[in-house]
Amino acid sequence: MSSIFTKIIQGELPCYKIHEDDKTFSFLALDQVNLGHTLVIPKQEVNHWFDVPADVYTQVGLNAQKIAKAIQAATGCPRVGTIVAGFEVPHYHLHLIPAWSIPDLDFKRAQKKSADEMTDIQNKILSFLK
Amino acid sequence: MSSIFTKIIQGELPCYKIHEDDKTFSFLALDQVNLGHTLVIPKQEVNHWFDVPADVYTQVGLNAQKIAKAIQAATGCPRVGTIVAGFEVPHYHLHLIPAWSIPDLDFKRAQKKSADEMTDIQNKILSFLK
Repeated sequence: MSSIFTKIIQGELPCYKIHEDDKTFSFLALDQVNLGHTLVIPKQEVNHWFDVPADVYTQVGLNAQKIAKAIQAATGCPRVGTIVAGFEVPHYHLHLIPAWSIPDLDFKRAQKKSADEMTDIQNKILSFLK
Repeated sequence: MSSIFTKIIQGELPCYKIHEDDKTFSFLALDQVNLGHTLVIPKQEVNHWFDVPADVYTQVGLNAQKIAKAIQAATGCPRVGTIVAGFEVPHYHLHLIPAWSIPDLDFKRAQKKSADEMTDIQNKILSFLK
């Protein structure tokens, strides 16, 4: 069975897309720890991040660097934190979370945002990615 | 002024070393969220992870994959989580944390361990890195 992320990549489920290339896909997290919270994932379904092939893992990381700079520019956050946990979806996903302090990096903060808020932050991040 | 991590790399402060190569250094975190908690850092002092040069950032990531597998083998944890926060030491450091559930990935759990515990887990991780 395809992971929820594979369904997003294939367009079977909607998302607010941030970036796509041959090996990776990036989109706003469905539940936002802070507005601008983005996931960068390999298109290939791999459960553990440490099992992702080196070329794909590297491409996720280098794209994450570019996207994180755009998140910082779009949100004004002092830092962009990253987390990999993986207990819920067995398809490696790197969380990029705009953060003002360590307690910001807490999944208990995650909540749905309105479509307007999501579209607005998507457009802001995209404007800085160009 | 050198960061605390640069002092560790230069041997001015002690650590439980896990790995070293030309661009990176890895050692047990001084305060352990869970026993086996390891930091992988670039030797070069860079504040934000997204500003680390691509070759160095990639080398940190690929070493982290290998070390995480050894942490999993040494601890029996189901997953190795990663976090980058950076609010305390302005020198990029990737936390590798053995985790049994999401609440394990919480810096409030961090505590000093005894020298015996640190040496024991260091040796176990090293045995699986070979």
